[in-house]
Amino acid sequence: MTVGVTRENIAIVLQRPRYPENIGSAARAMCNMGFHRLIVVDPGIWDEERIRRLATHAAGAVVDGIERFDVLSDALAPFGHVVGTTARLGGQRPVLKSPEVLAEKLIDLSRNNPVAIVFGSEDRGLTNEDLKYCHQLVNIPTTGFTSLNLSQAVMVICYCLATATRSDPPAFTPRLAKRIELDRMYEELTEALVRIEYVQPDNPDYWMSRLRRFFARLPLRAGEVGIIRGICRQILWYGNRRYEEGSVDGKTMEDGRPLR
Amino acid sequence: MTVGVTRENIAIVLQRPRYPENIGSAARAMCNMGFHRLIVVDPGIWDEERIRRLATHAAGAVVDGIERFDVLSDALAPFGHVVGTTARLGGQRPVLKSPEVLAEKLIDLSRNNPVAIVFGSEDRGLTNEDLKYCHQLVNIPTTGFTSLNLSQAVMVICYCLATATRSDPPAFTPRLAKRIELDRMYEELTEALVRIEYVQPDNPDYWMSRLRRFFARLPLRAGEVGIIRGICRQILWYGNRRYEEGSVDGKTMEDGRPLR
Repeated sequence: MTVGVTRENIAIVLQRPRYPENIGSAARAMCNMGFHRLIVVDPGIWDEERIRRLATHAAGAVVDGIERFDVLSDALAPFGHVVGTTARLGGQRPVLKSPEVLAEKLIDLSRNNPVAIVFGSEDRGLTNEDLKYCHQLVNIPTTGFTSLNLSQAVMVICYCLATATRSDPPAFTPRLAKRIELDRMYEELTEALVRIEYVQPDNPDYWMSRLRRFFARLPLRAGEVGIIRGICRQILWYGNRRYEEGSVDGKTMEDGRPLR
Repeated sequence: MTVGVTRENIAIVLQRPRYPENIGSAARAMCNMGFHRLIVVDPGIWDEERIRRLATHAAGAVVDGIERFDVLSDALAPFGHVVGTTARLGGQRPVLKSPEVLAEKLIDLSRNNPVAIVFGSEDRGLTNEDLKYCHQLVNIPTTGFTSLNLSQAVMVICYCLATATRSDPPAFTPRLAKRIELDRMYEELTEALVRIEYVQPDNPDYWMSRLRRFFARLPLRAGEVGIIRGICRQILWYGNRRYEEGSVDGKTMEDGRPLR
């Protein structure tokens, strides 16, 4: 059994978001990843209709539950651990270099502690004043263009928190072909390919080796071997039928017309 | 030394996106993560101003370079490996259970092969018809509410691809068959299988779907597609030869002996 972060102890905090659409998109992203506590501090515009349009109906409950504050310090008061997000690396504060590293830390921390993850405004990010309230900073690694859309940043963080140490359910595996089924398949395949002169009859093993390598690239399933054997049998049947058709036509075309 | 995916060989394909804003947001997310090739197929609305507003100035070059197509098959023709994104698990097709697993696979695959990652429309995702072109599907794991915003889904995939690294030396990867080579192979295969009556001519797609699933289990190499197409041609040749043999024998066996 594996454990992940304790989602109900983690809150997303948007500090001075400018656009209601980003609040709504953040709520939807949270909902996708199983997070439900959203705190909004001093928003530039509060327009619930625009928020809800991007949140979609599914994240309606997250929007209903939004906690609003005027100042960041009040919003963060009850939290035992506060993480700030930043596009900048370096400076005086230690920055966790990826959301994955953060997620690993939060698995233990969030078990018994309310944790806040704070995102700054779209244009300026978190100010030095805001950073004072953060125990820790995390950076989302980018390539070239560092400025993520606010709700995209929320998604990346929530995704990484949600997927940290997930236990994999065993994949469904259909029955694989037994060795004897494979051997018969290769016999029938060789016969069919010799008949259609795709492989040379004097040294079929040489010619078959490429096909064997191809099929060996994946463990063939019993059903797939059945398909291939069925096709081989149909090739032989087809040859016999065409022979009969030609034979009948040959008898009736005694006038010397060219064979079709 | 660590290796990652080869970004310049990876394209993001949006199939029938409804909203220009999502195209723009996807472009920005790509740009954040260092991906630059964006393909848009049959968009609901093409409004470059709305696209650019969400892309921001930084992703302007990605928007400039957008390749537009009317149909998905044309868009995918040059790609050696096509990955579809789906919110659904289960069903008959194998679905990679996370973007991380996909990313690990693409580290080798993207080195020498153009790879397309296809996202369906906001309301319906990828249809069964669209899925026919995909070698593989990937699911973004969610908790509860499975429907991700389109550009959020693009971000999660791009983020996972961008951050995947591996220290192993890369395995050798032969050239994979391009989508157009695969399409021709399926055409020739259908013709041959109809001829030998392995599939019913009135509904070949139904019968071919099992074979497509089989071949989709592994990325077919160009040389392997050549083998299969060669066999198909030989089957047709064989039918004609057998017909001629029967025809000649039919003329010479006037004494009523049974056809061999």
